[in-house]
Amino acid sequence: MIKPVYLTEDDTIVMLDQRKLPLEEVWLKINTPEKVAEAIKTLTVRGAPAIGIAAAYGFYIGVKNLTDASRRKLEDRCRYLTNLLGSTRPTAVNLFWALKRMNRIVEEDTVSPVIKLIKKLRAEALRIHEEDIEACLSMASFGSRLIPKGVKILTHCNAGAIATGGYGTALGIVRKVHEEGKVEMVWVDETRPLLQGARLTAWELEKEGIPYKVICDNMAGYLMAKGMVDVVVVGADRITSRGDVANKIGTYTLAVLAKHHNIPLIVAAPTSTFDLSLESGDSIPIEERKEEEVLNFAGMRTTPPKAHAFNPAFDVTPAELIDYIVTEKGVIERPLCQNINKLLKDAD
Amino acid sequence: MIKPVYLTEDDTIVMLDQRKLPLEEVWLKINTPEKVAEAIKTLTVRGAPAIGIAAAYGFYIGVKNLTDASRRKLEDRCRYLTNLLGSTRPTAVNLFWALKRMNRIVEEDTVSPVIKLIKKLRAEALRIHEEDIEACLSMASFGSRLIPKGVKILTHCNAGAIATGGYGTALGIVRKVHEEGKVEMVWVDETRPLLQGARLTAWELEKEGIPYKVICDNMAGYLMAKGMVDVVVVGADRITSRGDVANKIGTYTLAVLAKHHNIPLIVAAPTSTFDLSLESGDSIPIEERKEEEVLNFAGMRTTPPKAHAFNPAFDVTPAELIDYIVTEKGVIERPLCQNINKLLKDAD
Repeated sequence: MIKPVYLTEDDTIVMLDQRKLPLEEVWLKINTPEKVAEAIKTLTVRGAPAIGIAAAYGFYIGVKNLTDASRRKLEDRCRYLTNLLGSTRPTAVNLFWALKRMNRIVEEDTVSPVIKLIKKLRAEALRIHEEDIEACLSMASFGSRLIPKGVKILTHCNAGAIATGGYGTALGIVRKVHEEGKVEMVWVDETRPLLQGARLTAWELEKEGIPYKVICDNMAGYLMAKGMVDVVVVGADRITSRGDVANKIGTYTLAVLAKHHNIPLIVAAPTSTFDLSLESGDSIPIEERKEEEVLNFAGMRTTPPKAHAFNPAFDVTPAELIDYIVTEKGVIERPLCQNINKLLKDAD
Repeated sequence: MIKPVYLTEDDTIVMLDQRKLPLEEVWLKINTPEKVAEAIKTLTVRGAPAIGIAAAYGFYIGVKNLTDASRRKLEDRCRYLTNLLGSTRPTAVNLFWALKRMNRIVEEDTVSPVIKLIKKLRAEALRIHEEDIEACLSMASFGSRLIPKGVKILTHCNAGAIATGGYGTALGIVRKVHEEGKVEMVWVDETRPLLQGARLTAWELEKEGIPYKVICDNMAGYLMAKGMVDVVVVGADRITSRGDVANKIGTYTLAVLAKHHNIPLIVAAPTSTFDLSLESGDSIPIEERKEEEVLNFAGMRTTPPKAHAFNPAFDVTPAELIDYIVTEKGVIERPLCQNINKLLKDAD
C-alpha cells in the first residue's frame, strides 16, 4: 500500500513529493515541524486526510525533544505547533481535527510526566494514521456495494492512497470495485490548475492496472450527455452538519451536471472530515491560491504578460446535490442532514 | 481591427499564427491551398467563421493560375479544392458553407470564360470576408441590447476578432458592451486543452483594455453560485434547424450550469453557422483530436507514460438550454426552433 507520509522508527517523517509526480517519485525526509508546515502549504503533501496525518506527525516531531522540559513549556510548544501547522491551509478540516486530537492528549492527562506525554503523542499520531487507513478500507467496502458491475466512474482531483493514510477515499472505492471486477472505465478529470487528476490519480490507477482515461474538466458534461458516466465519486475536504461538502474546485460543477443527468454523486470521506460546528457550506473558508497557478503552466507563461486570474482552490456542493456520503461508519443516504446527525451522534 | 487572415493585393494569404499567441505575434505568408488546409488542421487559424474565410481564400489561390485552362479543368480543380479544404475539420459548418459559395460561382455561370470566373472567385472570397465583418458588427449591435450596465460576462474559448473576419461574434458583443461602458468584468474560461481562452481571448481583451480575469474551466460553477456571473456569451461552430448548438467542448457544461443558476446563455453566430439540413444536434459530427493535446502541455508530459485520454473538441448544447441566438439579421428568442425558421427563411 502506498502511504504518502509515514514516521520511521527513529522519528523521521518520510514524505512523497507529490509535486513531482508522475514524472519523478521523490521521497523526502523531514525533521522539523516548520518543514512539515511548508510541505502542506506547497502541496508536497495534499489531500484532506493526508494533511491531517502529516500535521499529527509534524506536531509530534515538534515536541519530541522536550523530554526534559516542564509541562508548561510543553503546553507553550503545543500552542506554537497548533498555530504553525493550523495556519497552512484553511479549508480541509481534518487538519484542525488532527491538531485537536494531539492537543487533547496533553489537555486530558494532567498527571503524567512530560516524557510520558510525548510518548502518548507519538502513539496518537500513529493511531490517527492507522485509523485513517482502516477508515479507507471500510469506506471502500461500504461504497462498493452502491456500485454495479460494468460501471463507468467519473472522479475528480485525487482522493486516492496518496491523499490519505493509504488506499484512498473515492479511489479506495474505485480500487475495491476494481478488485471485484466491476470497473469498465474510470474517467479522470485532469483537475486544473494543478492537475491532481492527470498527475496523481492517473499515476495511482496506472500502478494498479485499473482502466482509465484522462479528460479535461470541461469534457465531463459531454460524457454524461452521451451516457458514458454511471456514477461520480469524489472525496471531501470538509462536510457540514447539513451535508454541504467542500471539495476541490470543480466538484460543484460536476454535482450540477450529475443532477441534470440523473447520475448519482457519491462523496467518500472519513468522519474526521465532518465539521458539525458549521451548518451551511457558506461558512466554510475557501482557500484562494496564487494567480500564477492559473496563469502559468509548469513555469511557462500561457497568458498575456499583464493577465490576472482568480484561483479558488475549493468549492461547496450543497447537500441537495449529493446522493450518498460514504464514511467508515456506514453510508449516509438522503436526507443527509438527518442521517448525518444519526450516524455521527449515535456513534459518538 | 485585427483580421486573423486576409488576402493581399498580389494574392498572398497572410495569416496570424494563433498557435504562438500570446507569447509571439507571428504572421505567415501562404501561397498554396495545401498550406491553407494544413493551417486549418493545425489550428494556425481557428474559429468557425475564420476557417470559412481561410478556406475561401485557399480556394481562390488554388484556381488563380488556371487562367489559360479549360472550364473542365477548372471544374476538376474546384472538386479537388473542395475535397482538400473540406476534409480539414468536420464540425464547424462555415467551412462547408464557404466552399459551397465558391463552387456556386462556377456552377451558376456557365457562360463566362475561365479567366472571368477566377476574377469572380476572388471577389467572392473577399465578399465572404467582408460580409463576416459586417455580420460581426451587426451581431454586436443586436447583442449589446440584451446586456445591462455593470455586467459580469463569462465567455468560453475564443469567439473574438481572430476567430472571425474581424471584431468577433461573442467577443464582438463584449467589445460593443465595453464601448458602451457597461462591462464590469469578463471571466475568461481558459478552455483546455488548447487554452484558446487563456491565450487568445485574454490577448484580445488585454489589447482593448477590457477588464478580465482568467479562470480554469472547472471554476465557472463556483462563480455562478457566488453571483459573480450575470450572463454567458459564447460563439458557435454549427447550429441546427431546431437550435442545437455545437461549440467548443465545455460549452454544454456551461449551459447546464447557467440553466441551474438561472443565468441567460447567449450564443452569437452569423447565419453562415446554421445548418438547416440537420434538425438534431446529435447528427453533428464531433471532431476528436489527438490524445496528446490532453496528455501533454507545451510538449511536456503531465501524465504517466502509458496514460490515455479522450479528446472531443466540441460538444452540443440542446436548444432547451439556450436563451438567445444573436445573428446579423437579428436576435432569435425562444422558442428557438420556430424563430430560427422564421428569421432564416423569411430572410432568404
